[in-house]
Amino acid sequence: VSAFDEATHLGADGVGAILDGWDIGGNANGGYLLALAANGMRTLAGRPDPVTITAHFLAPGRPGSVRVDGTVVKSGKRFATVSGSLSDGDRTIIQVLATFGDLTSVDDIEVVHGAPPELAPRDQCRRRQTGDGGFPVALMDKIRVELDPRCAGFVTGQPSGNGEIVGWFSFVDDRPIDPLALLLVADAFPPAVFDLNVPSAWVPTVELTVHVRARPAPGPLRCRFRTRFVQGGMLEEDGEMWDEQGTLVAMSRQLALLPRVP
Amino acid sequence: VSAFDEATHLGADGVGAILDGWDIGGNANGGYLLALAANGMRTLAGRPDPVTITAHFLAPGRPGSVRVDGTVVKSGKRFATVSGSLSDGDRTIIQVLATFGDLTSVDDIEVVHGAPPELAPRDQCRRRQTGDGGFPVALMDKIRVELDPRCAGFVTGQPSGNGEIVGWFSFVDDRPIDPLALLLVADAFPPAVFDLNVPSAWVPTVELTVHVRARPAPGPLRCRFRTRFVQGGMLEEDGEMWDEQGTLVAMSRQLALLPRVP
Repeated sequence: VSAFDEATHLGADGVGAILDGWDIGGNANGGYLLALAANGMRTLAGRPDPVTITAHFLAPGRPGSVRVDGTVVKSGKRFATVSGSLSDGDRTIIQVLATFGDLTSVDDIEVVHGAPPELAPRDQCRRRQTGDGGFPVALMDKIRVELDPRCAGFVTGQPSGNGEIVGWFSFVDDRPIDPLALLLVADAFPPAVFDLNVPSAWVPTVELTVHVRARPAPGPLRCRFRTRFVQGGMLEEDGEMWDEQGTLVAMSRQLALLPRVP
Repeated sequence: VSAFDEATHLGADGVGAILDGWDIGGNANGGYLLALAANGMRTLAGRPDPVTITAHFLAPGRPGSVRVDGTVVKSGKRFATVSGSLSDGDRTIIQVLATFGDLTSVDDIEVVHGAPPELAPRDQCRRRQTGDGGFPVALMDKIRVELDPRCAGFVTGQPSGNGEIVGWFSFVDDRPIDPLALLLVADAFPPAVFDLNVPSAWVPTVELTVHVRARPAPGPLRCRFRTRFVQGGMLEEDGEMWDEQGTLVAMSRQLALLPRVP
């Protein structure tokens, strides 16, 4: 069993656990929490793929027992919509709204105004390390986030100013990347604001939406995350995830806070 | 009282009505439904502005009595998160998840990588008409959607192929545009896919998310909507709304279906 499958496993009663090692500075990664919730909710939906899923982040996820609850709001011919949550005994950690479907064959691609980011070969990229950015990113023992050199300047305090983080994604145990894993990918890269000339450290997510547009072909993903607007202490981050065949497999957008660096 | 305020009015019990005249081909506009739901949910939240709001569209909204229900999932220092719905007696029309706050003073703008669309003066734009596109767009008696000539070719069967719809937005009765109205604006323009060389007619929304980034200054908005990826019978549409002072006031993204034209 892959580490990701183990970490997103739930019993038939929706009970599972936030496992240790999927955190950034002690708080479970938001994409991991989203995948865990989605895994429970898709069982309720009776459909495999989160076509569009939104989470609002309400409390930090800490290792330990959690449960996924949900209500099927509508089950139609093509989609089922579920309102749900991931909680520990007392608190809602994330509240989620999602529509599930089946993306087995997305073969009629009609318009593509865009392309995967151009990336240096993986062995010339900078793998994101546990310990980067001044606090422990334990998650990086589970996944490989390999940053193109043009956006890795933030590590040494020299962001490019473009507000764009681009790189490769794969699992350390080479688990195939499926729609559930795409939810993790959507929040696994360093915040794109790190590539701007804005003092930033911890960038807590308020809300994250992912559209899964196709099931990925085997192989690592090419990903692009961009922040264009920082105002009022908030920012958006837009993501695109592309598979080895050059198909757009997911788009993401999050709204996040930009607390002042003391 | 403005037409929009009348159409989004709810009693203290959350009961209101979908009013006639806010529809496209008989179905209430999705942005109008979202504004109606948000108006009820922000009362529950005790905070005025929908900072991030997501709706999943489950059944068409027809004129008549409706109610907004909701549960405050978390009420914190800065935000309150509400899970809610808009329904008629039997059916959930939209299921909504939203976080509300107060955007009174968004004055520290730090990064803006983007600009409002360049638009022809309003008197040289093409106002979207009731009757455009082969079916009645009654909504256009309430609002002014004035399209820049470069994207109005679809009206005569000559889309530019850019997949971008740009134009001005204002209310016919010149009601000021506030965060609630921005939810309407986010779904008030012709679908951007009309500007692509893809046969399309009715483009039903599966999910719509709006981030309100600031309260608009007085005056009409400059808006841009773009569709870049059409695949598997689905498409995304990204929107930006800019006020008269050149401030980005909202971003939107929706996932929509592209049914085959018979």
